[in-house]
Amino acid sequence: MEPRGLFITVEGGEGVGKTTNMQFLEDHLREAGVDMVVTREPGGTTLGEDVRELLLKPREEAMAADAELLLVFAARAQHLAQLVEPALARGQWVLCDRFTDATYAYQGGGRQLPMSTIRELEQLVQGDLRPDYTLLLDCPVDVGMSRASARGELDRFEQEQAEFFQRVRDTYLQLARESSGRYHVVDASRSLEDVESQLETVCTELLACWGVRHP
Amino acid sequence: MEPRGLFITVEGGEGVGKTTNMQFLEDHLREAGVDMVVTREPGGTTLGEDVRELLLKPREEAMAADAELLLVFAARAQHLAQLVEPALARGQWVLCDRFTDATYAYQGGGRQLPMSTIRELEQLVQGDLRPDYTLLLDCPVDVGMSRASARGELDRFEQEQAEFFQRVRDTYLQLARESSGRYHVVDASRSLEDVESQLETVCTELLACWGVRHP
Repeated sequence: MEPRGLFITVEGGEGVGKTTNMQFLEDHLREAGVDMVVTREPGGTTLGEDVRELLLKPREEAMAADAELLLVFAARAQHLAQLVEPALARGQWVLCDRFTDATYAYQGGGRQLPMSTIRELEQLVQGDLRPDYTLLLDCPVDVGMSRASARGELDRFEQEQAEFFQRVRDTYLQLARESSGRYHVVDASRSLEDVESQLETVCTELLACWGVRHP
Repeated sequence: MEPRGLFITVEGGEGVGKTTNMQFLEDHLREAGVDMVVTREPGGTTLGEDVRELLLKPREEAMAADAELLLVFAARAQHLAQLVEPALARGQWVLCDRFTDATYAYQGGGRQLPMSTIRELEQLVQGDLRPDYTLLLDCPVDVGMSRASARGELDRFEQEQAEFFQRVRDTYLQLARESSGRYHVVDASRSLEDVESQLETVCTELLACWGVRHP
């Protein structure tokens, strides 16, 4: 039986450079010979991408916060059953752009839904599954927001105000303190070269950890 | 302040004649002067109808049962916040084609998800809100299935097998026994005239109950 793959998640608010940095990670890990699935949440399956579209599309009627939360977990349930769990079981690594920590940050921090409700749904949908390693790309809210708005049209989340994103960031940093074992925080306000050199360290750590598990 | 409206749900498996009988109920109650909103689940809001489409569309990949359950409750959360609760609070009646009992019947009975999980989500999304009155249109599975298949193309639920619908029916009848106070079971295998005369009794009961609350 193949040893189980590593489950790596990349987290961060708007404009922290997730796309560029995910690509850097992916390239480095593949180059080192890692067999890997790269995916994202919400999304990763056809149903999940349909749900993502519902979540991001700006709407005339306000979306109820609990409806939003349940949609996020519905997409996650499908993602885990159809893609993440089978890949990990086959021994592949999974590199996922956002996961449940984003739910704590956006729906818990941002929308101020009770963290206990999110924990309940996390348990329901994931059982014991948690990421093995989480990379948090962190930068001040004003820096991230100006980068994100430079990209053009804003989705339903990007249209939120600065206080919303401040709560998102605060929640992420709180999670990183509480789960310092699996969290690695990268200062994403630094230059691209500096961030990439931080990511190289991350790759080395990940491959070392893999090497220990598969000598 | 307006007294709160009555929340009436109509339940039943495939091919029990919900559409025709809902229309009969609606006509009779409106004729008696009831100010009423008629709606359905999943659906009733633009987000809810989008989710309904995701749920009913036949798909190549199997939908995870817990993803399905969470989508149903996401649509419900939006429906309650945007339409049902405000209408009841204004004093309007709400006549709803399927509600949480359908979740117990289809996802609990049909898909065999734990009833305790459904109860947990019901509590999360609805708090104390329950229907005041539930009409169950009941008929044997083979009768309902042959009526439904005569309507043409089948959706993702209608494509299920007889054992699935038998579990759906058994669950509905079980719920009717457990909540006999709010349940009224109509034998939908009888002739249209006979069913309509049973529905007239239902309307009389509902209007009487309303009269008592609003003398």
